[in-house]
Amino acid sequence: MIDHLEVRTQGKGLHEITGELQRLVAACGLDEGLCTVMVRHTSASLTIQENADLAVQRDLEAWFERNVPEGDPRYTHTSEGPDDMPSHIRAALTSTTLSIPFERGQLALGTWQGIYLWEHRRRGSVRFLTVHVSP
Amino acid sequence: MIDHLEVRTQGKGLHEITGELQRLVAACGLDEGLCTVMVRHTSASLTIQENADLAVQRDLEAWFERNVPEGDPRYTHTSEGPDDMPSHIRAALTSTTLSIPFERGQLALGTWQGIYLWEHRRRGSVRFLTVHVSP
Amino acid sequence: MIDHLEVRTQGKGLHEITGELQRLVAACGLDEGLCTVMVRHTSASLTIQENADLAVQRDLEAWFERNVPEGDPRYTHTSEGPDDMPSHIRAALTSTTLSIPFERGQLALGTWQGIYLWEHRRRGSVRFLTVHVSP
Repeated sequence: MIDHLEVRTQGKGLHEITGELQRLVAACGLDEGLCTVMVRHTSASLTIQENADLAVQRDLEAWFERNVPEGDPRYTHTSEGPDDMPSHIRAALTSTTLSIPFERGQLALGTWQGIYLWEHRRRGSVRFLTVHVSP
Repeated sequence: MIDHLEVRTQGKGLHEITGELQRLVAACGLDEGLCTVMVRHTSASLTIQENADLAVQRDLEAWFERNVPEGDPRYTHTSEGPDDMPSHIRAALTSTTLSIPFERGQLALGTWQGIYLWEHRRRGSVRFLTVHVSP
Repeated sequence: MIDHLEVRTQGKGLHEITGELQRLVAACGLDEGLCTVMVRHTSASLTIQENADLAVQRDLEAWFERNVPEGDPRYTHTSEGPDDMPSHIRAALTSTTLSIPFERGQLALGTWQGIYLWEHRRRGSVRFLTVHVSP
């Protein structure tokens, strides 16, 4: 089964989508299987991360700001703004697609895991995701 | 088919799980298909890496120690120790889930590839993995 | 269904394989499903990236050259040349396997997304990929 998600982001940072994906899995009525989610953009990405302490998200974002800086004068792809080329590098370093097993109708995440869309552009956007669920 | 693995790690570093995954695939009796493994933690991750020279693993670990250092004073998520926040960043930079095709009952790895659980905490732990195998 | 691709690379950089994968998906005759591609090497990797401005590829390559430098004297795995150990680190930081949903027989990529084999060795090589397509 193929389904689609639209996620409105407000700017850089992690946006949890665990609930939306769990609802799509439940709607399939399958007991066990695999759920694959792909983000259809190259300036946003996906990650499975800690869902408890927001300081983790802040520190993740800060590591990327230090190591993949905006406006580095060595970038040559600059026409879309200082946050565009870093967003492509961040996407390469994280994930564009994730496959998560499920059983008893529940995504097999650990207690402290959430699935996140990671927005890398300052302004945010509407982001389109495609989801595939199979037995 | 869903199955589970428990892996006991002794500290930071790569722990090969190719054999365990190959056994789960063989137990399914399928000729070809896809094997997906997910680690249910955010301070350990997965990677497919060289299985021949242990120096590769040492150099991988050293690169991450230099670029995602323990105890960086800029981290704000510090309550679980100096190796905790770097472990989440390492997980974001590597993989939480991997999907490997198989044919003739064998994972389609190259000669020099092994599948590894990467422990990022100093003390190690028992790590839980969920495995999905389908045609 | 399992299939195989061989890709001849000429040296470091991104080599687009979207067309080859789309042809394999079309040949299956399935309306919707999941296409998984795995590179059977540890000195090349996979990424989904921008397919419009070649400057993106140049800047990606340059970021990796700066952050995962060739010939770093701290590498201990050096027998295969100065570009070998960085290639394993680059593979760990990007992807060895990617799963892409498809619908109406078309990979569900965004307008600006392409699927790339990323060669990390200076000389290039023939690279072998395994592809799995299922409903």
